[in-house]
Amino acid sequence: MLETQTLAAYIVTNRIESVPEDVRHEARRAIVNYVGCALGGSRDTAVDRAIQAFGPYSGRPTARILGRCERTDPLHAALMNGISSHIYDYDDTTPKNYIHPTSPVASALFAYASANPVRGRDFMEAFILGFEAESRVGNAVYPAHYDAGWHITGTAGVFGAAAGIGKLLNLECHEMIWAIGLAATQASGLREMFGSMAKAFHPGHAAQNGYEAALLAQAGFTAGEHSLEGPRGFAAVQAAKYDLSKITAGLGVDFDLRANTYKPFPCGIVNHPTIDGCIQIHREHHPAPDQIRAVRLRVAPLVLDLCNQRNITHGLQGKFSVYHGAAIGLVRGKAGLQEYTDEAVNDPQIRRLRELVSATGDPSITEDQAQIEVELAGGGKLTRFVAQSPGNVHRPMTDAQLEEKFRDQAAALPAAQVHEAIRLCWKIDEIEDVAELIHAAVPEES
Amino acid sequence: MLETQTLAAYIVTNRIESVPEDVRHEARRAIVNYVGCALGGSRDTAVDRAIQAFGPYSGRPTARILGRCERTDPLHAALMNGISSHIYDYDDTTPKNYIHPTSPVASALFAYASANPVRGRDFMEAFILGFEAESRVGNAVYPAHYDAGWHITGTAGVFGAAAGIGKLLNLECHEMIWAIGLAATQASGLREMFGSMAKAFHPGHAAQNGYEAALLAQAGFTAGEHSLEGPRGFAAVQAAKYDLSKITAGLGVDFDLRANTYKPFPCGIVNHPTIDGCIQIHREHHPAPDQIRAVRLRVAPLVLDLCNQRNITHGLQGKFSVYHGAAIGLVRGKAGLQEYTDEAVNDPQIRRLRELVSATGDPSITEDQAQIEVELAGGGKLTRFVAQSPGNVHRPMTDAQLEEKFRDQAAALPAAQVHEAIRLCWKIDEIEDVAELIHAAVPEES
Repeated sequence: MLETQTLAAYIVTNRIESVPEDVRHEARRAIVNYVGCALGGSRDTAVDRAIQAFGPYSGRPTARILGRCERTDPLHAALMNGISSHIYDYDDTTPKNYIHPTSPVASALFAYASANPVRGRDFMEAFILGFEAESRVGNAVYPAHYDAGWHITGTAGVFGAAAGIGKLLNLECHEMIWAIGLAATQASGLREMFGSMAKAFHPGHAAQNGYEAALLAQAGFTAGEHSLEGPRGFAAVQAAKYDLSKITAGLGVDFDLRANTYKPFPCGIVNHPTIDGCIQIHREHHPAPDQIRAVRLRVAPLVLDLCNQRNITHGLQGKFSVYHGAAIGLVRGKAGLQEYTDEAVNDPQIRRLRELVSATGDPSITEDQAQIEVELAGGGKLTRFVAQSPGNVHRPMTDAQLEEKFRDQAAALPAAQVHEAIRLCWKIDEIEDVAELIHAAVPEES
Repeated sequence: MLETQTLAAYIVTNRIESVPEDVRHEARRAIVNYVGCALGGSRDTAVDRAIQAFGPYSGRPTARILGRCERTDPLHAALMNGISSHIYDYDDTTPKNYIHPTSPVASALFAYASANPVRGRDFMEAFILGFEAESRVGNAVYPAHYDAGWHITGTAGVFGAAAGIGKLLNLECHEMIWAIGLAATQASGLREMFGSMAKAFHPGHAAQNGYEAALLAQAGFTAGEHSLEGPRGFAAVQAAKYDLSKITAGLGVDFDLRANTYKPFPCGIVNHPTIDGCIQIHREHHPAPDQIRAVRLRVAPLVLDLCNQRNITHGLQGKFSVYHGAAIGLVRGKAGLQEYTDEAVNDPQIRRLRELVSATGDPSITEDQAQIEVELAGGGKLTRFVAQSPGNVHRPMTDAQLEEKFRDQAAALPAAQVHEAIRLCWKIDEIEDVAELIHAAVPEES
């Protein structure tokens, strides 16, 4: 009926005090994961090029981009944060609607908080409500909307950014309705962009546009007031089939943050059980790489459809090679950003081992599973069956694993800053000003 | 097949020398009409509010907004020009695809040219090619796309702005392909926004986003290379039915500028024949308003569906009142912006006459026609039948009428500036720097 108004009223009136502690903790985990990913991606060429393109158009440089020296205005900072945090496809996912949910919302909020004083509790409140708005709008149109070719992280993301920034701006209900309308009318992002930098542009664009929607609404710029449910509104126009009740059902009780998941490895998700099993073998048995004679994998058939690249020379190709995944797990006992560089892919020891790996598709093995057999020079065998992919909803990454993932991506920052940034992420809802955290997540002035 | 590449190659290689003179003249007419509309809308509250919202985020103020004192960066100037020129729905229309075509393209180009030296011939070349790109992309998805609820002025407009700015930036073909991709993935704008300020936001947003797409492409920011024809590209995702051959058929020979039309009156188009007939009666017979005893209209039935408002007190309501249209035509002999103010609607003479008008729906009368009968105090009758609506493709506005429309909208500028701006619009392809024209179309520094 009046989903736009109901959602707006919820965002305007809800307070963090009514959010259960388990949801708040999941929000902290999402922030730890997000800031790490933003740092990890911040040195990528895509971010360099976007900064090069828009640098001359930057407004007053009151804002910071996570992981970068450059200062810019908050709107461009939102864009850059979004590109950084998604460029390696290493950010979080809500499997129920396939959104990478934190990037559009947090990219806008961190940009805002880098230029304006924001208490940690207000930041968390805006983040949780923005996340919820985004995910619920996504639920209403998923899967038809995604299947049609929309990159739902962009299209739903703009609602989350508008809601989150609108909350920080203390918009009144009629203004929040306009902000949602101005978000709806900017919802965009085509899956045809996958494989190019434009994919990571989507959450950045959503963050910037959502931020702008909230600013326009605050200034009294009007928009249609039935932007979600109207006959020419977001759902009707952008989904062949939709269920608007998913926007409002259980508001304030059910939180999609509980369904959030984090990737342990920066590569195709179907490689994850294989990598995980090989890391387990490395940690328990420490087989010397030159003592390994063969590695035999039994994996879901889809793995060989998607990740069958063998003769590889570029880091990016490693993401689509289950053989590379097995090799780095066995040789290095980890699979972070450093294991997907050109250097790692061409490391002689890793290359040698990669060539010893064979894989068989087995329909009895699910995409969350892998069977690994390592044959040693002496004839001994090490085997491992992985029953659940690490990071999925049944086997979530631990807080400690999220910290390790953060550190792996933050290698360009001094260790003391990394330590401080992680510490402040975990207590973000208690800090007096989020600028403290942002300060720890940008390079020292040179 | 490869529509994106074909279109990109056409934009990159084509030169104004190969554009026929009739098309170039139509482009000048579009510019005269556009600059007038941008001036007319530039004082509207919507523009004030957008400037208020984004002023604090403006980059270096190298650019001008047509009709405004404020300086801003070119990207925000593109946005503001787009809002100004569409806010009164008085800009041009290509009836074959329902796009208001000039606003997204020219709003970006004038913003660019206000901050960078641009020769008139280059401006015209970029405008004609941008217009063509936009209109052809629109043709490919019309009518399914528009019927589904997309505001095609926004969605197709972003392609036109990207193409036009990309042309001025001298993008190479692979960069133009990226610019088109980055435009496609930002294509947005819902018809649910009609009746709010957000409608006029659409061409502004398209202008700004298209401009940004070209800048990103120039910096090497990559995008999908089949953004128009790909399985998850613009056409497949945003139209249930489409014909991509319309993008490439007759490129360089057929120009959609030839199908462009201009509105003579700033109100619902179905009122236009009535207003025109009443103006004709006024000009030929000068009936004194107090000598008119009754006005009887026979109009298409749709007119009474859309424009049947009688007891009106606000200027905006006048746009949807065929009675008001008849009254202003008879009393003032014109129907410009000044006839749709609160003052005009409440003018006692106009109000009195409005109450004497009656209208009958007649299915034998088309929406381009009207039959008018004015009964005078002495018993005499003045009648007029309008067979074609003024401004439609069969009865285009003359160059002199476009100038008059311009002057009517530019009342806030000194007459000498208005004269100069019109003169420079007509010879835009000859001037050394478009800044000359822009200088005439902004208020003197105070």
